[in-house]
Amino acid sequence: MENLSDNQNLSASSALIVIGNEILSGRTQDKNIYYIAEKMGSHGVPLREVRIVPDIESRIVEAVHSLSKQYGIVFTTGGIGPTHDDITAACIAKAFGLGMERNKAAYEELVKHYSDGEVTEARAKMADMPVGAEIILNPVSGAPGFIIENVYVMAGVPKIMQGMLDHAVGMIEDGSPVLSKTLVFDMPESEIAGRLGEVQDQFPDVEIGSYPNFHNGKLWTSIVARSTDEALLDKVIEVVRSVFEA
Amino acid sequence: MENLSDNQNLSASSALIVIGNEILSGRTQDKNIYYIAEKMGSHGVPLREVRIVPDIESRIVEAVHSLSKQYGIVFTTGGIGPTHDDITAACIAKAFGLGMERNKAAYEELVKHYSDGEVTEARAKMADMPVGAEIILNPVSGAPGFIIENVYVMAGVPKIMQGMLDHAVGMIEDGSPVLSKTLVFDMPESEIAGRLGEVQDQFPDVEIGSYPNFHNGKLWTSIVARSTDEALLDKVIEVVRSVFEA
Repeated sequence: MENLSDNQNLSASSALIVIGNEILSGRTQDKNIYYIAEKMGSHGVPLREVRIVPDIESRIVEAVHSLSKQYGIVFTTGGIGPTHDDITAACIAKAFGLGMERNKAAYEELVKHYSDGEVTEARAKMADMPVGAEIILNPVSGAPGFIIENVYVMAGVPKIMQGMLDHAVGMIEDGSPVLSKTLVFDMPESEIAGRLGEVQDQFPDVEIGSYPNFHNGKLWTSIVARSTDEALLDKVIEVVRSVFEA
Repeated sequence: MENLSDNQNLSASSALIVIGNEILSGRTQDKNIYYIAEKMGSHGVPLREVRIVPDIESRIVEAVHSLSKQYGIVFTTGGIGPTHDDITAACIAKAFGLGMERNKAAYEELVKHYSDGEVTEARAKMADMPVGAEIILNPVSGAPGFIIENVYVMAGVPKIMQGMLDHAVGMIEDGSPVLSKTLVFDMPESEIAGRLGEVQDQFPDVEIGSYPNFHNGKLWTSIVARSTDEALLDKVIEVVRSVFEA
């Protein structure tokens, strides 16, 4: 795949920072990576890297520094609630050398959401964001996410994150969607490897992946071709089919 | 959680590099992170960072460089099959400035596995490993993983990875298992935040996390305490219970 790396425009790509001791401890299985990967691939700003880091300031700041320089868009999930371990907003501010402020638009969302009209100090903390942040609406539980520089800060609860991403995607310029087509063969990869490598050499601009599945004691192989060019993709799939169905 | 970062001995911790275009494209949902996180927490060598990178040499080499210096153990999953996109072994060799060789023990495993006795060149490629690598047995499909320096290289197919990890863990000195206890309350985090922060301040050596769950239109909160000291953990849970059940 090395050829492709030079063609990849990382500024038209996205990265994700999952902030979560609960994922690293094995307490919770992440469900956000998959959703964001699929959504951003379709939107043409494909996910090219994910980092899962603990709820520790230095690790979050380091990841934001590193990824926000390399990728066009960086998402974060987790750590934006009202408790002592919700340190994401302050870390993002620190990463960009910004102060924190009570965001007016975010505070108004909280007032609208809590039907008792009571925005306690703990609730209000969820409106504390880096100076100049733009909010990402939360259609599920009120407290918004936010955007600062090229970083999109979202909740960790999957249902809430999904609502935020659906809103955020509308604010991200779309690229050419990455299309994919898959063929499945009941052969192990080792019987496919040589000829598949030849097909890859023949079509350097299409990313051809080979994925073994273990099922009922037998190895199957899925061959997946990915490209933004549908005609080219059809051609590759036709060649793969003719090679392996022969 | 900032206090804890200074106490964390990263050399007694592990990190994971998931090598997988199929995860980043949203084609496949990762199932390995969760399994490795749980297993290594119980083994006392907890997972402290995960990176998911594409099948691109420079990105894999960079991740191996960075994480193998910081953590006691680094796992990788994916990219060790026989096809053109299986570049993990060569990347690990490059990261450590090592050459590649046909590993004898690995080759013997292949001969044993293939009942037809036929180790084709494509199959034999799975025995090509960095010079000096020690193999990790694969009880499922024959082709082994390997260990070089502090990096443990495993398959990406979950069933195969699990078999390899079960074997590898026996070769990793265990630490103090990280224990966790959880209490669930039907209140949103904002009603818990202030008093929970006080409990955290009272017990700086226990990691107290608060995780919202959205269920039937209502926010619940799980409070999770983690420590290697069971007596201390019991004490924290007792305090949390007495504070929030009052």
